Amino acid sequence: MAKDKKLVESITSMQEDFAQWYTDVVKKAELIDYASVKGCMVIKPAGYALWENIQHELDRRFKATGVQNVYMPMFIPESLLNKEKDHVEGFAPEVAWVTHGGQNELQERLCVRPTSETLFCDFYKNDIQSYRDLPKVYNQWCSVVRWEKETRPFLRSREFLWQEGHTAHATAQEAQERTEQMLNVYADFCEEVLAIPVIRGQKTEKEKFAGAEATYTIEALMHDGKALQSGTSHNFGDGFAKAFGIQYTDKNNQLQYIYQTSWGLSTRIIGAIIMVHGDDSGLVLPPKIAPVQVMVVPIQQQKPGVLEKAKQICSSLEGRFRVKADDTDKSPGWKFAEQEMRGIPVRIELGPKDLEKGQCVLVRRDTREKYETALDEVVDKLAELLDTVQKDMFARAKAHLDSHISDAADYEAFKEALDKNPGFIRGMWCGDQACEDKIKEETAATSRCMPFEQTRISDVCVCCGRPAKKLVFWGKAY
Amino acid sequence: MAKDKKLVESITSMQEDFAQWYTDVVKKAELIDYASVKGCMVIKPAGYALWENIQHELDRRFKATGVQNVYMPMFIPESLLNKEKDHVEGFAPEVAWVTHGGQNELQERLCVRPTSETLFCDFYKNDIQSYRDLPKVYNQWCSVVRWEKETRPFLRSREFLWQEGHTAHATAQEAQERTEQMLNVYADFCEEVLAIPVIRGQKTEKEKFAGAEATYTIEALMHDGKALQSGTSHNFGDGFAKAFGIQYTDKNNQLQYIYQTSWGLSTRIIGAIIMVHGDDSGLVLPPKIAPVQVMVVPIQQQKPGVLEKAKQICSSLEGRFRVKADDTDKSPGWKFAEQEMRGIPVRIELGPKDLEKGQCVLVRRDTREKYETALDEVVDKLAELLDTVQKDMFARAKAHLDSHISDAADYEAFKEALDKNPGFIRGMWCGDQACEDKIKEETAATSRCMPFEQTRISDVCVCCGRPAKKLVFWGKAY
Repeated sequence: MAKDKKLVESITSMQEDFAQWYTDVVKKAELIDYASVKGCMVIKPAGYALWENIQHELDRRFKATGVQNVYMPMFIPESLLNKEKDHVEGFAPEVAWVTHGGQNELQERLCVRPTSETLFCDFYKNDIQSYRDLPKVYNQWCSVVRWEKETRPFLRSREFLWQEGHTAHATAQEAQERTEQMLNVYADFCEEVLAIPVIRGQKTEKEKFAGAEATYTIEALMHDGKALQSGTSHNFGDGFAKAFGIQYTDKNNQLQYIYQTSWGLSTRIIGAIIMVHGDDSGLVLPPKIAPVQVMVVPIQQQKPGVLEKAKQICSSLEGRFRVKADDTDKSPGWKFAEQEMRGIPVRIELGPKDLEKGQCVLVRRDTREKYETALDEVVDKLAELLDTVQKDMFARAKAHLDSHISDAADYEAFKEALDKNPGFIRGMWCGDQACEDKIKEETAATSRCMPFEQTRISDVCVCCGRPAKKLVFWGKAY
Repeated sequence: MAKDKKLVESITSMQEDFAQWYTDVVKKAELIDYASVKGCMVIKPAGYALWENIQHELDRRFKATGVQNVYMPMFIPESLLNKEKDHVEGFAPEVAWVTHGGQNELQERLCVRPTSETLFCDFYKNDIQSYRDLPKVYNQWCSVVRWEKETRPFLRSREFLWQEGHTAHATAQEAQERTEQMLNVYADFCEEVLAIPVIRGQKTEKEKFAGAEATYTIEALMHDGKALQSGTSHNFGDGFAKAFGIQYTDKNNQLQYIYQTSWGLSTRIIGAIIMVHGDDSGLVLPPKIAPVQVMVVPIQQQKPGVLEKAKQICSSLEGRFRVKADDTDKSPGWKFAEQEMRGIPVRIELGPKDLEKGQCVLVRRDTREKYETALDEVVDKLAELLDTVQKDMFARAKAHLDSHISDAADYEAFKEALDKNPGFIRGMWCGDQACEDKIKEETAATSRCMPFEQTRISDVCVCCGRPAKKLVFWGKAY
């Protein structure tokens, strides 16, 4: 059992080195492995099961709003990528180019999709003719490629998995409504399922998506005080429609341009789950998203009846909960460490003494509190406990978020807050990109969003002192 | 309603031109659209919903056998692809090559995965150390790219969606068992869910997968008498393990090579559904896989109570069935044609006269038989009818298959059977590839498989007359 000690000792503490802690957890919880191509990752069963649960839950919420899934090709001809000026400028520097098919050089090189606006536009151009064809509310689950220089598992990789929704509407208003609707789907999903509280707001011109009229974002706060953009929703207006010539005939037989949106959420969100909830023993998963919610661990399993009872409890919980029993020949201590590393929300311990008393012990992963529970009450207590864990995890994350939001009226206060209480700084902004640039250069903080709930905490810009236009959440970000 | 007529007339009859009929159905049933990159397709909502149902049902069956899902990168470095000799020879001529990332030329070019054996091997090499790490039973759902010259929607496209399972075992026997197990999962899925009867067997050396020790296949027969390879399962023995150096320490502390399998089923199967069940009015979908199982069509919907009742029936069926009501202002004739084109298994017609009688009319898509049904019996009758349709579709496909299997004792009989009753020809084979080559060159038929159920229908090879070794199913194939 030399390996036993190693597991516990194998991860760096958050306090010591947060970045290293993150990398350690990702590896030791067996979420990913590195691949032979630099910056790409192998998503292992424990990581992929998380993504499957995320997909399942999000897809259900999408479909409830009328979304239909489709699949677009992964290749974009260079000429197609070039059609919308801002878009190509934003993406061309970081795409992978296919130049050969088999032995032959291609006549036109193809990029591997970094995002699929241009493909959907090309499709909509033929598919949409009349107002009867609108709206189109399409989505795809796929992988995309962005040739990043610096990469980190889940947070920034050359290939990642995501969903990208692409919609087409008859009116600007409908497009705006859909843009906000999907942002709210993301926000509700994060808060209700992942127990991650988020700030909802609009990106500034500088930070918006290449080709968008407006970008909306949900921003989450990690344990180290850095922000993570966790999902975005873009209103394109009729910009892409004009660049691609996508028109429909309205009820009065007039040609009109369509209005479009897109919205995406990626495997990056797994990084958020790790950095919002994790601790020095590894992952801590919210029950609603955990691939395994309960691990039954027999103690002194060689004693008569223990293993049988453990398996019996496991069987009785199946169907109602996602449950497993660890009947390997590892020591209980090793099993505990493993279950904790993997973030399994509740452990059920059962030994000979428990058997005598007709009980078992439920142990929460998040607080490690233990509850002696009569065997005939396990189902009810467990349901209650998982519910409590989910709520408590959200409450703790919310308390962390709230206590890491500082208000700053001037630049000195801004810098001090960033230094003393890393997190979001609420500061007024004049609307000039020069101030965003200056703040970024001098403090490494960026404008995260202009929150939907605007209040006026000062009359002047936190950077330049000129009249303020907008309240902005600032922060260092992943 | 000029469009009305067009839909019915818009598809070529099967009799006239089967290939054109196929293309017409694929387009008019709105399964796919062509994309800007030649040979790639856009899978539209009706097509993707089919794939989602296939995924859901197969994934459930996989997991019941212990499969875990993972995700491997889409890129394979050239040096990695080159590691297994037969494999690279089979795939290198038809891969797409990435040569540039952003503005920079890559040091080593990367191919977009045509299949992922090499990636899994590279991963297993590090991940598998001890017998305790075995078996690995992994699968991924993804897209792959093969730079084909001739392409057809679903049947052969440059990019397609599939699942690829890749397993690693301690013994050759376990690998063989898994190979056969997964072939049977495919076969049962095709027969039970898609209502497509299949022939199970082993591929000859000539037809096996590049790098495999043995390839097993399920072969289905299309309406035009051509075969479609519908799923394959490969036993690699320790060939890849030796090429990649994948070893584990066994219980006696000895280094051993692992044994591997892989198995895949792709969107190609949608082509099989179309060509096995379709007719001159379009798609005919088996109820178990149909995205919409029942379409409620109101007749004279402007008459009081009709539309309301139609919607009420629809609501009462939701949850139990996948049901929709067509309340658009199209004519009933147009709605019928659309429902038939899309292959929706049952239509419920409801008009003012039905309302008076407290009934509706159930119409089967496959036979067009009508059943007047009391409104309070709809749920039970519908459940029964869908079940009957599923069974009858399988029975019809099975009868078609059985009546298109001919036995041939010599080469003249072989050619005559192929000409007079296109389908599978059962003929004995000497085991020499020269005979396969000759038959292919002269008749365009290939060896589809050596069926698991071997019988001896003659003592000599159907081609050369030398002593026979194996019974082979021969046929022209997609």
